[in-house]
Amino acid sequence: MKEAKDKSTQPGIISEARVRVRYAETDQMGVAYHGNYFVWFEVGRSQYCNDCGFSYRELEARHGLYLIVAEAHCRYKTSAKYEDELTIRTFVKELTRRTIRFGYEIVRADGVKVATGETLHILINKENRPTSFPAPFLELLRGDSMNR
Amino acid sequence: MKEAKDKSTQPGIISEARVRVRYAETDQMGVAYHGNYFVWFEVGRSQYCNDCGFSYRELEARHGLYLIVAEAHCRYKTSAKYEDELTIRTFVKELTRRTIRFGYEIVRADGVKVATGETLHILINKENRPTSFPAPFLELLRGDSMNR
Amino acid sequence: MKEAKDKSTQPGIISEARVRVRYAETDQMGVAYHGNYFVWFEVGRSQYCNDCGFSYRELEARHGLYLIVAEAHCRYKTSAKYEDELTIRTFVKELTRRTIRFGYEIVRADGVKVATGETLHILINKENRPTSFPAPFLELLRGDSMNR
Amino acid sequence: MKEAKDKSTQPGIISEARVRVRYAETDQMGVAYHGNYFVWFEVGRSQYCNDCGFSYRELEARHGLYLIVAEAHCRYKTSAKYEDELTIRTFVKELTRRTIRFGYEIVRADGVKVATGETLHILINKENRPTSFPAPFLELLRGDSMNR
Repeated sequence: MKEAKDKSTQPGIISEARVRVRYAETDQMGVAYHGNYFVWFEVGRSQYCNDCGFSYRELEARHGLYLIVAEAHCRYKTSAKYEDELTIRTFVKELTRRTIRFGYEIVRADGVKVATGETLHILINKENRPTSFPAPFLELLRGDSMNR
Repeated sequence: MKEAKDKSTQPGIISEARVRVRYAETDQMGVAYHGNYFVWFEVGRSQYCNDCGFSYRELEARHGLYLIVAEAHCRYKTSAKYEDELTIRTFVKELTRRTIRFGYEIVRADGVKVATGETLHILINKENRPTSFPAPFLELLRGDSMNR
Repeated sequence: MKEAKDKSTQPGIISEARVRVRYAETDQMGVAYHGNYFVWFEVGRSQYCNDCGFSYRELEARHGLYLIVAEAHCRYKTSAKYEDELTIRTFVKELTRRTIRFGYEIVRADGVKVATGETLHILINKENRPTSFPAPFLELLRGDSMNR
Repeated sequence: MKEAKDKSTQPGIISEARVRVRYAETDQMGVAYHGNYFVWFEVGRSQYCNDCGFSYRELEARHGLYLIVAEAHCRYKTSAKYEDELTIRTFVKELTRRTIRFGYEIVRADGVKVATGETLHILINKENRPTSFPAPFLELLRGDSMNR
């Protein structure tokens, strides 16, 4: 995972988003329901795009491009509770012309790691066909703008 | 509510849909989170349309018509628990050319009433403008097909 | 609503919470699903308690008191879209010894009102029985600490 | 994963649960939001327990035992749409004294495979400590009752 792969890059920025566990997100075990972690990952992705200098909303609305989810994985370390403040660290693990793999770490305010995970996405166009990232987006996703 | 109103009709069919409370739908109080009742109402509406002889999916996909929600209300009587089997009774309280008001009753398998509610909808077209129900849908929503 | 009622008070503070519409919260109409507004109201309530000087989490955990929802209502004015930043204004409409009625206003970043609503809550104890707010909480909910 | 492991068994029953995609479960891409698949997996697990002859609700309520989620994974093949009828096939991939790994397959009514996934669970008691399945549950989870 750490080695460079053909046609892929391993960008270096790590984005941080914050959520506070909602009552609606708890279940009868008294902790955040495990399915919500994937929603928080998505919050992390949105923030990642914003931090890279573009909005995922614009990617869809202006360019007719969609990042569909091909795979999602989460490893749960500790439970999160109602009103816990969580930081979602999002980074890119692998970026090819047509796919992007995000990695995530969710950390509680007291520093305890709550979960790690990753999602694999494929870029498609309005005709539902896999397509390549336009060059400017590739550069932004690599976080090049941050290194300047 | 029971009297006939100008330009409105009070159709007579009552549709029944069934849901089983999911773990994801519980919260840390150990009961179904109150926000989920509005999702169950929506399950009831879908069933109501199906029972009337059309699919809401088709209304959107083929006719470009959308029933947006203008108001939603719920009165909670008893809590629902994980794995409880609930019946959602859906009926039309008021139907005008451009709006429809659904009423709901949620009942547990043991006959206890869990909640009642209602939602008011406005029909809009793809241009986001209020529009009138095409005559065939008006008739179907009135449940006329059921009385034949 | 504005007149004082017997055994009730109309506290004056207005709390503000912020949410950003998540992709998970949108539906196929391209706007935030109407059921999510009740989750946002709950985010507003949590913030209201925090702003009054106590945590609802503590009320449950330390005092064994629960604010169950007896009624919920929402009036939708304009749709909210993915990534919209919303402000939830929460205030107390009515406070009796055993019940509290919250009012809400959801406003978009551009100032447009998205929705208004209210929820009625009953305080219960661990035995599931209606109970009275301990005096200190009554005072805090009234927002008295804010006026000093 | 296919080989027998020490202290583990690979039970043979496959349970089937059915869900119909709710409007609330769609997102602005016009398909079911990927996070919901984990909720459907949970619906599959509940059904699996029921089919094996016990209720997960009872496991928690009577025995004070909880199956927490340690890992969750989903591979998305095709999108699911509003009102699609989905069958969730749930089976046990690995069962040890303290852990259980469920496998899932989600199939559309037309036979198309929508997704596959798995979740790993650890049994804990009320003190939050890992614990062993009581013997009768181990046998039920193995689906022994089905083979008689």
